[in-house]
This record gives sequence, structure tokens and C-alpha cells, in this order.
Amino acid sequence: MEAVLPAKWAPLAAGVLAVVLIVVVALILRKVAHRLITQVVRRASSGTGGGLAGRLRGRQTVQPEGLDAVAAERRRQRAETIGSVLRPLASILILGTAGLTVLDRLSIPIAPLLTSIGIVGVAIGFGAQELVKDFIAGMFMLLEDQYGVGDVIDAGAAVGTVEAVTLRITRLRDADGRVWYVRNGTITRVGNESQGWSRATVDVPVAYTADVPAVRELLQRVAEEIWEDSAFRDIVIVEEPQVWGIEQISDTAVVFRISAKTIPSHQAEVARELRLRVKAALDREAITIAG
Amino acid sequence: MEAVLPAKWAPLAAGVLAVVLIVVVALILRKVAHRLITQVVRRASSGTGGGLAGRLRGRQTVQPEGLDAVAAERRRQRAETIGSVLRPLASILILGTAGLTVLDRLSIPIAPLLTSIGIVGVAIGFGAQELVKDFIAGMFMLLEDQYGVGDVIDAGAAVGTVEAVTLRITRLRDADGRVWYVRNGTITRVGNESQGWSRATVDVPVAYTADVPAVRELLQRVAEEIWEDSAFRDIVIVEEPQVWGIEQISDTAVVFRISAKTIPSHQAEVARELRLRVKAALDREAITIAG
Amino acid sequence: MEAVLPAKWAPLAAGVLAVVLIVVVALILRKVAHRLITQVVRRASSGTGGGLAGRLRGRQTVQPEGLDAVAAERRRQRAETIGSVLRPLASILILGTAGLTVLDRLSIPIAPLLTSIGIVGVAIGFGAQELVKDFIAGMFMLLEDQYGVGDVIDAGAAVGTVEAVTLRITRLRDADGRVWYVRNGTITRVGNESQGWSRATVDVPVAYTADVPAVRELLQRVAEEIWEDSAFRDIVIVEEPQVWGIEQISDTAVVFRISAKTIPSHQAEVARELRLRVKAALDREAITIAG
Amino acid sequence: MEAVLPAKWAPLAAGVLAVVLIVVVALILRKVAHRLITQVVRRASSGTGGGLAGRLRGRQTVQPEGLDAVAAERRRQRAETIGSVLRPLASILILGTAGLTVLDRLSIPIAPLLTSIGIVGVAIGFGAQELVKDFIAGMFMLLEDQYGVGDVIDAGAAVGTVEAVTLRITRLRDADGRVWYVRNGTITRVGNESQGWSRATVDVPVAYTADVPAVRELLQRVAEEIWEDSAFRDIVIVEEPQVWGIEQISDTAVVFRISAKTIPSHQAEVARELRLRVKAALDREAITIAG
Amino acid sequence: MEAVLPAKWAPLAAGVLAVVLIVVVALILRKVAHRLITQVVRRASSGTGGGLAGRLRGRQTVQPEGLDAVAAERRRQRAETIGSVLRPLASILILGTAGLTVLDRLSIPIAPLLTSIGIVGVAIGFGAQELVKDFIAGMFMLLEDQYGVGDVIDAGAAVGTVEAVTLRITRLRDADGRVWYVRNGTITRVGNESQGWSRATVDVPVAYTADVPAVRELLQRVAEEIWEDSAFRDIVIVEEPQVWGIEQISDTAVVFRISAKTIPSHQAEVARELRLRVKAALDREAITIAG
Amino acid sequence: MEAVLPAKWAPLAAGVLAVVLIVVVALILRKVAHRLITQVVRRASSGTGGGLAGRLRGRQTVQPEGLDAVAAERRRQRAETIGSVLRPLASILILGTAGLTVLDRLSIPIAPLLTSIGIVGVAIGFGAQELVKDFIAGMFMLLEDQYGVGDVIDAGAAVGTVEAVTLRITRLRDADGRVWYVRNGTITRVGNESQGWSRATVDVPVAYTADVPAVRELLQRVAEEIWEDSAFRDIVIVEEPQVWGIEQISDTAVVFRISAKTIPSHQAEVARELRLRVKAALDREAITIAG
Amino acid sequence: MEAVLPAKWAPLAAGVLAVVLIVVVALILRKVAHRLITQVVRRASSGTGGGLAGRLRGRQTVQPEGLDAVAAERRRQRAETIGSVLRPLASILILGTAGLTVLDRLSIPIAPLLTSIGIVGVAIGFGAQELVKDFIAGMFMLLEDQYGVGDVIDAGAAVGTVEAVTLRITRLRDADGRVWYVRNGTITRVGNESQGWSRATVDVPVAYTADVPAVRELLQRVAEEIWEDSAFRDIVIVEEPQVWGIEQISDTAVVFRISAKTIPSHQAEVARELRLRVKAALDREAITIAG
Repeated sequence: MEAVLPAKWAPLAAGVLAVVLIVVVALILRKVAHRLITQVVRRASSGTGGGLAGRLRGRQTVQPEGLDAVAAERRRQRAETIGSVLRPLASILILGTAGLTVLDRLSIPIAPLLTSIGIVGVAIGFGAQELVKDFIAGMFMLLEDQYGVGDVIDAGAAVGTVEAVTLRITRLRDADGRVWYVRNGTITRVGNESQGWSRATVDVPVAYTADVPAVRELLQRVAEEIWEDSAFRDIVIVEEPQVWGIEQISDTAVVFRISAKTIPSHQAEVARELRLRVKAALDREAITIAG
Repeated sequence: MEAVLPAKWAPLAAGVLAVVLIVVVALILRKVAHRLITQVVRRASSGTGGGLAGRLRGRQTVQPEGLDAVAAERRRQRAETIGSVLRPLASILILGTAGLTVLDRLSIPIAPLLTSIGIVGVAIGFGAQELVKDFIAGMFMLLEDQYGVGDVIDAGAAVGTVEAVTLRITRLRDADGRVWYVRNGTITRVGNESQGWSRATVDVPVAYTADVPAVRELLQRVAEEIWEDSAFRDIVIVEEPQVWGIEQISDTAVVFRISAKTIPSHQAEVARELRLRVKAALDREAITIAG
Repeated sequence: MEAVLPAKWAPLAAGVLAVVLIVVVALILRKVAHRLITQVVRRASSGTGGGLAGRLRGRQTVQPEGLDAVAAERRRQRAETIGSVLRPLASILILGTAGLTVLDRLSIPIAPLLTSIGIVGVAIGFGAQELVKDFIAGMFMLLEDQYGVGDVIDAGAAVGTVEAVTLRITRLRDADGRVWYVRNGTITRVGNESQGWSRATVDVPVAYTADVPAVRELLQRVAEEIWEDSAFRDIVIVEEPQVWGIEQISDTAVVFRISAKTIPSHQAEVARELRLRVKAALDREAITIAG
Repeated sequence: MEAVLPAKWAPLAAGVLAVVLIVVVALILRKVAHRLITQVVRRASSGTGGGLAGRLRGRQTVQPEGLDAVAAERRRQRAETIGSVLRPLASILILGTAGLTVLDRLSIPIAPLLTSIGIVGVAIGFGAQELVKDFIAGMFMLLEDQYGVGDVIDAGAAVGTVEAVTLRITRLRDADGRVWYVRNGTITRVGNESQGWSRATVDVPVAYTADVPAVRELLQRVAEEIWEDSAFRDIVIVEEPQVWGIEQISDTAVVFRISAKTIPSHQAEVARELRLRVKAALDREAITIAG
Repeated sequence: MEAVLPAKWAPLAAGVLAVVLIVVVALILRKVAHRLITQVVRRASSGTGGGLAGRLRGRQTVQPEGLDAVAAERRRQRAETIGSVLRPLASILILGTAGLTVLDRLSIPIAPLLTSIGIVGVAIGFGAQELVKDFIAGMFMLLEDQYGVGDVIDAGAAVGTVEAVTLRITRLRDADGRVWYVRNGTITRVGNESQGWSRATVDVPVAYTADVPAVRELLQRVAEEIWEDSAFRDIVIVEEPQVWGIEQISDTAVVFRISAKTIPSHQAEVARELRLRVKAALDREAITIAG
Repeated sequence: MEAVLPAKWAPLAAGVLAVVLIVVVALILRKVAHRLITQVVRRASSGTGGGLAGRLRGRQTVQPEGLDAVAAERRRQRAETIGSVLRPLASILILGTAGLTVLDRLSIPIAPLLTSIGIVGVAIGFGAQELVKDFIAGMFMLLEDQYGVGDVIDAGAAVGTVEAVTLRITRLRDADGRVWYVRNGTITRVGNESQGWSRATVDVPVAYTADVPAVRELLQRVAEEIWEDSAFRDIVIVEEPQVWGIEQISDTAVVFRISAKTIPSHQAEVARELRLRVKAALDREAITIAG
Repeated sequence: MEAVLPAKWAPLAAGVLAVVLIVVVALILRKVAHRLITQVVRRASSGTGGGLAGRLRGRQTVQPEGLDAVAAERRRQRAETIGSVLRPLASILILGTAGLTVLDRLSIPIAPLLTSIGIVGVAIGFGAQELVKDFIAGMFMLLEDQYGVGDVIDAGAAVGTVEAVTLRITRLRDADGRVWYVRNGTITRVGNESQGWSRATVDVPVAYTADVPAVRELLQRVAEEIWEDSAFRDIVIVEEPQVWGIEQISDTAVVFRISAKTIPSHQAEVARELRLRVKAALDREAITIAG
């Protein structure tokens, strides 16, 4: 090069060359970073490996067969959602660095630019904490697969069926039809009612004068009947309901408790059925409910 | 240029040239930035593409036909509102940088200026966190289309009909006519009652001595009657109301629950109608309400 | 100049010249800044343009005629209040910068000064966050015209009639005559009861044994009577009162609700009148109130 | 000077001269600053000018005559209290800067000193935030004249009569004789019961069976009697008491409300007198109170 | 010196001299600082001068004679406690600066040292905020003499008799014998029950049917009797007890209130005595207490 | 080397050499660090040594024999979990430093890179605080062995059986089958119900008229009977149950309390059995329960 | 040295020498620091001197004889616990500084290393605040000897017997057998029930119709009897129990209170015994308890 160009052009040529080089390297790095992100995220959310994701999730839910396709799709979506945030971040980091390096190489002063960016950056940075918090919380929720669309969850601020999960918010619909938008960063604990099983608990207050063993036996019979009922056994109830005995001797009644394990999210239905049957049985035997 | 001017003017001429150049570049950059913002915001809030906006919103509400024009207008307003904040921000960033670069190029010391700005900036910066938080929260609320003018929402601090949404605050009018100004940053979760459907829930406490199957049947008849009533069916009630059975055996009554899915925000009206009809039916059959 | 003075005086002369120049420029800049602030603030709070203010306020309240003068005066005061804070801020910024530049130009070391200011500044800065927060909140409240002197507002910490609004605090007088000073920054949401209309809501508990249709009809008659009363219709009540039906079947009563839209802040008065008339009507018909 | 001393002493002489100059300038500046503070504070707290103080206070209380001397004394004390904090602050700032400049001029390295001060300063700075917050809050409370010694205030943490106001704390004595020290920075809102007027509110629950118009008339008579009583009219009661009608139809009673405007802090006394007279009147007419 | 030593030793000698000088100056400064602290603290806590301490305390409690020795001892202890924290702080500041200056003078690089200290310092600094907060709060509490050993205080977290006050914590013993350690920084307001006087308040609920004037007279007699009792008058009760009249017409009773000013911390004892006498008096007159 | 290569290649060769050296050293350091972490963590969580771990845990639970294998496995898992977080952290620290050193050695400007990283880093750093807090809390929970899979804990946000512990979250399943994800950093205190023993407490309210010594004796007999029952003694109950006497003389009953120490997590079962037996015994003796 | 080695080796030799010197000095300093820490901590926690520890603890508990050995052991453990944290901290500080100085001396660039450490450090620093807070709180708790193993304390989050105290957490076991881990930094106040004495308080509600002097006398007799009982006097009760008179005239009863000072942590036992005896005495005299 030194031979071809006159000496006075040499620095300029070198500068152009450097700039081109920087840009090319940056573009390649960006490509590599995107690919890396895609792979890592996919592996992390696939959960088959025993890697970070497995450790983050730390669970081996026994999932009914036939759900594999659903789970695979949910995995794919999770990977996509997380990647869609990490990729632009990587781009900004790499291209920003490249841009500043080019300006620096061309001897254009970057201090004023940095000052401007810095002031605006800090000003926004403080206010954006919550935003970043939401995104980080969302990313880990997805990686740990805490809940998915269709699950019934208790997010503290609202309880309902998940309709959508993004990195920033979770959208729920509660029992009254209200649609809730909850920021992920404000969810400190989540209760998922759609995993494994639920429990229906029915409290039956009877008068002090009632005959305890008789009531107990009667409740036991109700529990057995519902378990023998083919509309419930193994369909919504997964274990024979149990009579837990006297839960409380309050100042107005002796309270018995019946408990039944059900498939997820059907506990209310089973509890109502149990109450109906208990009431009918108590009426038949003329046992007075507390009063 | 070197030929035309005497040597001693050369630096000055170069300086003027540089300043002009900087100003021109800054103005062009600003124009480009504004356009970019307009496009990005419009696309983000149009929601037709599967881009960031779609991912942010993450929903495919089934909207009744005829609402397209309304939705389009709402989209346009959203884009306008967001753009009106981002554009001045870009201007300040670009023109500020240009200004500092010009001063620097003219060898005017900018350190004292930066110091002054810095001290005032930090002083205000701390206090302005809340402001930035409000704006960021407002921007995402708009992008995610959490609610719009006319929706009935529960914003935590207040419940009412949205009258206006700006980037900083949401204005509501509650049922008592009170107008609420709620800062967007203080809204951690929003419940929107105007999306899809609402549910009317009516609890009917009856005395312990009541005949459970009879009450149940009676409530079922009331549910069917209102569903057959052409003033309600498919007008405000969207599904046949259901009798959910015994919700609670409290220490004073056996509580039955009826539930009806209604069009959004008409649940109170339907619930009142149901109560009227249930009371009338119970009176007819001489069934005692709890007491 | 070079001709007039001996060479050794030249730097001094140049220094004096520079200082004079800096001071003059600073004074001019300050003048310009003040004027700019006056104009921007006036326009922002006038609300006629569709500019930032309109977007910030985002509302088109239908205001009764005759209030134009009041509104104009309120606007003028708002502009004055905001300007009175922004102007000294601009002065400090511009004159501070000029002072530091002069010292720097005169080769007086400013590092120790900056250190002193910095340490005191940071020490105070942390503690002054709340102050700045109050001022920013106050400025936006004024710009958005959330409330003015004479409005009845619910500021969370206190409910009452606004007696004064400054940038830092809002002064209220509650119903018991207590004067409240509320820092603007602690007001996260404001409920203004003096805009548009208010609603009087009266709950009437009647015994379970009462005849529902009869009660309903009776309440309807009371509603009509008050609407026909020339002392109320269109004077304090702006719409015919409505009987909303059974609001609740509680464990002690069947609760009916009557609702009436009134002019702002007269809901309590109307509610009391309604209660008086309802009680009289029930007594006439010998319908037992819950008990 | 150059003539008198040998050349080698020149720098030393210049140094001494510079140090003397710095010290003199600093002392003069300090004097000026103190005077300025005294004037500004006095003017700010005098409230006669329409300046910052007026804007901060934003009120024109109609004060009874004869209080001018008291108010003037209170103003003087306020000015003194604020000045006693601002003056040492200005001294530290000016003398500290002068000290550092002298050290710097004498080529004594100040970096280690600044490091030590910085580390200790930051360590303390974080913890002292609350202290600065208290002082700033106290300063504005005094400037805005929110309350003074002798006022009965509700400071949130405690309610009582103000016994002392300093910049850091407010000392109250509550009705039980407890002395409360409340940090000014923890007071987010203050309710002052000693400004203008107070309201005595008396609720009278009567049985459902009571004759509403008769009760109302009776209460009206009681209100008139107390207003005619020369021991109350214009002495403690400032307006004729009003019967507001039925405040609530609760599930146990029909509640009437009487309201009377009193001079500040005498509402409890008036309310007790009203209750005595109402009870006596009801007994005379044999109207049953709720039960 | 230049004459005695060979030229090559000169810098070394100068270095040693400088180090010795620095150490000597530092030790003198430390001595001076300690003395200054002792004096300032003693004066501040003596409260005789009208200086900062007086302004901080802002009170002129009328203290019974004979307490002078106790108060003087308490003052001395306070001064000692505060000084014991400020003195080591001054030592660290002065000796640390001296150490760094010596290292710097000896051309030993101090940057790595500062880096290490800085990192550890910041790490601890954040966590130590609370500690500094406690110490600052404790120092002001002592300076303002908010409470001392033996006072009964309400510190929010606990109520009891002060057993010890250090800069970091206050130790209380509550009525149940529990010993409480409360961090001074967590005390936002303190209620001291041992200053001046306390008030005993006794509420007497009587049946609706009771004769109000008769009850009032009877309570008045009880109040006079206890005031005439030499075991109470001026011993524990400092003013004649007052009958305040009807405090409330609740839904179950008419509530009368008697109030008595007592010496500090004896209100419970007086209230119990009053209740005993009231009960006895009511029994004598056969007036039914509410029920 | 100087001999083999022409002089102009020397710097390049030195550079390459330096880079290789840096990389090699970094890789070795990383290896060493990983090994060190593995060892330290294993030792820390083994708890056999009296080192930091012992001091952190500070407990010597008497564990039933046969649990050694379980405990060893739990220890191994804990060590693995902690190591899996510390190792990548060490890698990033060492390799990042190496990378920057290489760039610096090759005279590639790293300032722009640092700027970019810094801005992104701070932006994320603020938001990631919570994340780091969770990880630190998790690490110490594991080191201190506060709970493990299978324990029943009260984590404040939720109570249930631990299903998984990761560094960021703890997964519980509550009694109703709900699965809770609780962030470790939000757990300020943990109550573990599965260590050592639990206590069943049964309150028995009896009527005022009951004969206290008789009731006491009867309860004592019930306590003895259950202790003699081979299904409970030493199986679930670990000490003879005690009758604690009258716990409260409330306004409706005299409340007796029986207490029984059980094996962990079986207190509810024992309490129910006790209630059944007490009720039966009271019925036999015809002692009335409160009412 | 200059004579032995060729000139070109001199700098290297000097470097090696410097490094050796630095390492040696660092090791000596570390040794000294460790010893200093051991001494200071031991003295601080021994509490015999009147130094910082005495001032921090600020108490002179009268401890029963025989506890000296226990106290000495507790002191030794405290010193050990605190030292085990301070020693590694000192090591890190001294060795870290030495390491950086060595690198600097060898002209190895340390800026990249500092950058890496700084970024990781700040990232972790924010999250580790809570950790440092816990440790500082724990250290002061130990120094002030607020509680020890075996004490019954109220830590806010949990109440129970202390089982272990480490610098980060306190382990308690509550009455139900639950083991609580409470982070020291979250404990803002501690109530220790095991120091000096406890008080048993028994409230006895008697009917309105009861004869007050008779009840009082009867309670007095019960108090005397238990004091005469050799199983209680001076064994668990340390002062003759007192009858405090009528604590409250509530709307359902006249409540008497008996109070007894007991040895620490035996108040519940004494209260139960008192209730038993009071109930028996009331039964004997046929005085009706409230109802």
C-alpha cells in the first residue's frame, strides 16, 4: 500500500481501512452473538439437558402423556420470547461499541457525545429500574417455567387464568371476567393451581349436642359414596376423600372437616358436590347443623 | 481555500467550516431520528406485524366487527402520544451533543458548563425518577394497549371509567362522579372490566331448615327464565346462567350461588335482576331466607 | 488594541475583554431564557393550543358558560407559579456557568471550590430528593390542572376543600375545619369531586318478609317526587333518580339502592333528603325496615 | 516589591501575598453571605412582600386583630431559627474552599486529604440523608408557617399541642400528657386544628319506630336553644347549628346528625353540651334512642 | 543542612524531615480536635448557653428543685457518650490523612491501597447506612435530651421504662418485664410519659334509661371526694378532676367521661381508684351500668 | 529471539508472545479457581469441620440414625448447586480480565468498549439487584441448611412442603395442592416445621358453671389414655400430653388447654384425635361446652 | 548490588527486591492486624473494662452467682464469632493491596483487572447490601449481648427460645416446635423475656351486679394464699402478687386485674395457677363471672 499511494494519503487510507475492518468485525460478532443466544436459550428452555435450565427449574413434574406436543410448543415459544429481548441487546452493545471506536479512530471527539448520552442515560436509568426488573423477572419465570398460558395462578395482585405471558407482564382473566395486567417484577411469589392436584376442603359445623361418632360415620359414608360415583372417581377425584375429624371446637359449633384430592382446578366443583351430599345426609339423619 | 485566504485565516475558516458541518449533520440526524421514531411507533402500535408490539401485547382479542375504525383511531392516537415524547428526547440528545461539539471545536471551555449542568442535573435527576417511571410505565401501557378511553378499569388507587390516558397519568371517573388522576408509575396491576365478558354472581343464603333439592330446582328455574327472556338473552347475557350449588355452609345459613356470563360491564345490572327474581320465586314457594 | 497598549499588558487586556464578554453573553442568555420560560409556560397552561399542555391534560371538560373569566385567571396564576420556580433555576444555571468560566479564564483554580460545592451538594442532594419530587409533582399537577382553589378533593392523606396550591404543598380544609398541608410529592392519586357531576347513593335495608315489588314501586314513587320537586330538579339533581333494585341479600336484610346524579359536591345533601322521604314513605305504608 | 527583596524570595512573597488575599476575600465573602442570609430569611418569613415566601405560603388568613405582636414575634423567631442553620453552612462552604485553595497555593498535596474526607463523607452521607431531610422539611414548614407553638396539630405520628418547633423536630403534648418528639422529615401531612374554625358533629341514633319529623323538629329546637344561649353564641359557636337530617339508615338505627361551627379547638366541648341537651330533650319527649 | 550532608543525601533528609513534620502536625491537630470536641459537646449538652443546643432542644421545662444534681450528672454522661464517638472519628480522619500524605511523600504508590479500601469501603458502606443512621439519631436524641434513664417512653416498637441509652440503641423494660433493645434509627417519634403531667381518663357507660343530670351530679361528687382525699390531692392528682359530660351516644350506652391530671406515670393508678369509687357510687344510687 | 528475527518484527513477536502468555495464565488461573471453589464449597457444606460452615449453621441437630445417606446426598447436591453458580462467575471475571488485557496489549482502544459495557451494565445493574439478592440469600440458605426437599416450611408468602430449592427460588406445595414459587430474597424469615418435634395444642372452652377440678381431672384422664394408646405413644406422640390448666377466662367461657409433643408435622393429626376424645369424654360426663 | 550485577540486570533485581519487600511487609501487617483484632474483640466482649463495649452495652445486670462460668464461656464464644469475620476481612484488604502493588511494581497493567473487578463488584455490591447489613447487625447484637442461646426472645418475625446465634441469622424454636431462621438485619427491635423478671397478669371479668369490695377482698385473699404457698414463694414468684383493682368497665363486665412478678419465663405458669385459684374462690363465694 505504501508503494501505491503518495505518502500524504497513507494515514487516510489506513483510517478507511481500520473503519471498514471495525465494521466487518462488528457485524460478524453480532451474527455470532445472535446465534449463540438462540442456541443457549433453546437449550436452556428445552430442559432435556441437565444444564443451567434444569438446575434453575429444579423439577421433574410427572406430566400426563399426550402433552408432549403442547410442552414442545410452549418451550419453543419461551425460547423465542427470551431471544427476542437478548438479541437486540447484544446488537446495541456490539454496534454501539463499533460506532464509538470508528468515531474515535477518525479523531472525532466523542466526549461531548458520551456526556449527552450519559446525562440522558442516568436520568432515564433511574426511572427504568422497574422496567429492567420486570424483564429480568419475566425471563427467569419463563426459564423456570413457573406457569404457562391456561394455568390458574395466584399472582398476589390478582388470581385467574393466564391468558398471555410476555417478558414485562402477565395477563390474567379472573373468575369475574376482569382482565388483569400484572408487571412481572411485582410478583414476588406465584401460586400455580394447575400442577399435579388440588384439594377440596369442606368444613361442616354441627351443634354441640350432636353425637360425634354418628356424625363422623355419616360423613365417612358420604365420602365413600362420592368415591364410588363413577362420575367423580378417577375423573375429577384422584384419591378416596377423607374425614379428618374435629378441626375446631369453636364457641358456636363443633367443626368437622372432609378433604378430597382432585385433578387440578376442580376443587371448587368437588367441594360443592360434597356440601350438597353432606347437607342431604344430615337432613336424612335429622342432625342439626350449628346454630 | 488555502489559495484564496491568507494563511493566518486558515484555522478560523476551518473552524467555521467544521461548525457548519456539525450543525448540518445534527439537523439531518434529527430529521432521520424523528422519522424513524414515527415509523417504529406506528408499526409498534399497529399490532398487525408480528414484531415487538405483538410480542409486548401478546394477545389476539376477538373483537366484534364494526370496531375496526375505533381501533384504528385508538392506534393512531397511541402512536401520536408516544411519538410526542420520544421526538423531543431525540432532539435534545442530538442537538445537545452538537452544541457541545461546536463549543469544544471553538476551544471554548465546556468543563464549567458541564459542571453546572451536572450538579443541577443530579439534583433534579434524583427527584425526577418518579416522573421517568411514570412516563415509561405509560409508554408500555399504551404499547400493550392495556386499556383505552371508555374502558372500566381497576387501577388499584381507584376504580372507574377511563376518561383520558396520557403518558404520565390516567384519568378515571368513578361511580360516584369523582374524577381520579392516577400516576401511571403507581399502577402495578390493572384490571380491565371491558374486555370479552363479565360474570354476575349472586349469593342466596337460605335457612338451615330449607329443603336443599327444592331450592336448587327453584334457582335453576329462575336461571332458565332469565335466559329465555328476550330482553336479556344474547343482549346482555351471553351464556345460560348456572346454579353452582352450595358455596358455603356458614354458621348462619346455607349459601347457594348463581353465576351468569354477561357482556362486559353489565354484570351489576344482571345480578340485580337475578336477585329480584330469586326473591320473588322464594316468596312464592315460601322458602325462608337465612335468619 | 495591540497598537495602543504595551505588549506586556496584552494578556491582561484580553482577559478583561473575555470576562466582560462572558458576563454580557450570560446576561443576554438569562434574559432570553426568562422570556422563553414565560412564553412556554403561558402557552402550556393556556390549553388552547394542541401542544404539550393539551396532551398532558388530555381533556375537554364541558365547562358551564360564565366560568371563562375564572378559568382565565386560574390559568394566569398557574403560569405565574410555575414561572416563578423555573426562572431562578435558569438564572442559577446560566450565572453559575458564567462565574466558573470567568474564574477559569482568570486562571484562578476552581477545583477546590468545586470540591467544596460537590461535597456539600451531594450531602444535601440526597436529602433534597423529596423536595424536588414535591416541586416536580406540583408543576405537573398545575400543568394538568388536576384541581384548583375551591375544589373538593381526596388527596389520600386528607379530604377537603382546596384553599391554596403551591408547587410544594396543597392546603386543604376538611369538613371538621382542620387545615391540612399535604406535600405534593406524597399525593399519588387525586380524586376531584368538583368536576362534572356527583352521585348520591342511598341504601335501604328492608326486612326479608317485605313485599319486594311493593317496596320497589314505593321507592320509584319517592324518586319521581323528588325529581318533580322544583327545589331539586335541575337545581341540584341533574337526572331523574333511579331505583337500582336489590343490591344485596345480606344475612339480615334485603337491601335496595336508589341513585341520583347531582351537581358536584351536593350528593350528601340529596342523599339525606332521599333518606328522609324514603323513611316517611315506608312509615306510611307500614313496611318494616330491616331488624 | 521586586526592588526590595532579593529575587529568590520573590515566589515566597507572592505565596504569602496570595494566601493573605485568599483569607481576606473569604472573610469578606462570609460576612456578605451571612448578611444576605439574614435579609433573605427575614423577608421570606415576614410575608409582607409578594415574594417567594408569599408564594410558598400561598395564604391570606384573616387573623383577629391584636395578634399582630404575637405574629411579629413568631416571624422573628422563625427567621432566627432558619438563619441559625444557613449561616454555619455558608461559613463551612466559604472557609472550606479558602482552606483548600491556600493549601493548593502552598503546593501542599490535598489529594490524600480529599480522599480521607471523601471516604468518611460518603460513609456518613448515606446515613445522614434522614437528617438533611428533617432539616429541609423543617425549614419549609417554618417558611410556610404551617403551625406554631400553641397550635393543636395532627402530625400523623401524634396529635397534640405544639410545644416547640426546631428545624429537626416538632415537640407536641397530647391529651394524655405524653410529650411527643416527631422528626419533621417523617411528617408528610399536617392537620392544623387551630386555624379559622372547627366543627362539632353529633350523631343521634334513634329507633326505627321513632317519628322522623318529630325527632327532626326536636333536634332543631335543641340547636336553636344552644344558639340563643349567651354562653355559647359568638363565644364558642360561630354559626347557628344545623340539623343535617338522616345520615344513615343502618341495620340497628336511624342516625340523625347535628353540626355546629365553633371557634378553633372547642368542638369537643360544644359536642358534649349538644349531646347532653339532646339526651335531655329526647327523654322529655320519651323518644327511644336506638337499641 | 546543605553544608553538612553530601548532596546525594539531601532529598532523603528532606523526605525524613517532611515525614516527621507531617506526623507532628497530625498529632497536634488530633489533640486540638479532641479538646474542641470535648468543649463543644459539653457546652452543647449543658444547655445553659443559648447556642445550638438550646435551639436544638428548644424547651424550657420547669423542673422541680433538687433535680439539679441528677440533671448535671445526666448532662455529663451525655457529653461523655457523644464525645466517645466523635473523638475516634476525628482521630481516624486526621491520622488517615497524615498516613496517606507520608506514603505519598515517600513516593510509595497509594493508588492500589486506595482501590482496595475503596472497594471494601463501598461494599460495607452500603450495608452500614443503618448503623450511621442509628448513631446520628442517637446523637441528636441525646443532644435534644428527649428522654433519659428512668423515663417511661413509647418508642413505637415498644413501650416501657428506659434502662439504658447508648448511641446505637435504647434499652427499655416493659410492664411485663420484657427487656427491649430498640435501634435509635428506627424510632421516628418518641412519646415521653414522664414529663410534666399525665392524664387519667375514665369512661363510664350507663344505660339509655339512666337519668343524665343525676349521673352527672353523682360523677361530680366522686370527682370532688377524690380531690378532697389527702392521699391523692397534690400527692398524685395535681388538679381537681373534671366530669367532661357525655362523650358518646353509642348504640349500646350513653358514655360519660371523667378526667384527672396526675403527676407523671401515675395515671393508671388514679384511673383504677376512680373506677372503684364510681362503681361504688353507682351501686349506692342503683344506677344501671350499660348492658 | 532478537537474533533470529529482523528488528522491525520484534515488537510484533513480543506482542504475540505476551498475548499467548496472558491466555495461558488466564486458563490456568481459571482451572485453579474452579478447583478451589469445588473444594471450599464441599467443605463448607459438609459441616464436619468446625470451619465457616459450622459457624454459619451453628447447630448440632440430633438426627435419627439411618438418615446419614440422605444427609450426605443432600450435602452433595447443595455443594453442586452453589458451585454451579460460583464457577461461571469466576470464569467471567478471569477471562474478562484476560480479554481486556490482550486488547490493551495490542493497542486496541478499550475505552469505547468499556463505555458501552458500563452504560448497559449500570442500566441492568440497578434492575438486577433483586436477582443478586435472591442468589445470595439462596446461597446462604443452602450453606446454613435451613431447609431441604420434603420439609414443611412457613416462608411467609406461602406455607407448604418444599419440592425444590434452587439458588433463586424455593418451590413449595401447600395443603390445597397449589404450587408456590417464592424468590429466596423475599424470604426474611423461615419457619421449619420438620425439625425435632411439633406441639399439638387443643383449647377446650367450657361453660362458666362447669366444675373446674372435675374438668381438669377429666382432661387429665384423656391425656393419659392417648399416651397409653399404643397407636400413638412413641409413634407420633413423644411425651405424655399435659393439661396446662385455664388459659383464659374469656367473656363467654373458661378455656382449658391440653398440649402434646409429637414427631414433626403430625401435630394436626394428634390435635384432631385429642378433640374427638375430649368431646366424647365431656359428653359422657354431661359437662356443657361453652355457649 | 551495583557492583555484583551487570548494569542491565539492576532494574530487575530492584523489582524482585521490591516485590519480596512488599510481600514480607504485607504478611507482617496481616499478622499484626489479626492479633489486634483478637485483642480488641476479646476486650470489647469481656465487658470488664469501661471501654467501647461497656458503652455499647450500657448495662450492669445483676446476675445470680454461679453464672460466671457460663457468662465467661458466652463471652469467649462471642469474641470468637466476631473475630472469625473480621480476620478474613483484614486479610483480604492487606493481601489485595499487596497484590495490586506488586503487579503495579512489575509494570503489569492493572486497569483491566480493576475494571473487571469493579463491574462484578458493583453488580454484586448492590445485591449484597442486605448481607452486610445482617453481619453488622449481628456483630453489634453480640457486642451488646442482647441475647444468648437459651433466652426466650421476641424477634418480631418470630417468638421463641434462641437455639443459635451466628453473625447472619438467629435461630429460634417457638412454642409449637417450629424452628425459625431470622436474618439479624431484619430485626429492628428485640424483646428479651429472660432477663431479671417477668410479670403474670390475670384479668377477671365479673358481672355488673357483683359486689366490688367483696370481689376485691376475695382476689386479695387468693393473692396472699399463693404467696404463702411454699411451692411458689421465692421459687417462681418473687414479690407478693397485687390486686390492681378495676382495669376496665367494659360494656359486658367489670374487669379486675391481678399482677405477680415471677422469675423470667414462668409468667404463663403462674397466671394459669392464679386463674385456677380465682375461679375456685369465686365459685365458693358464688360470685358470677361476667356473661
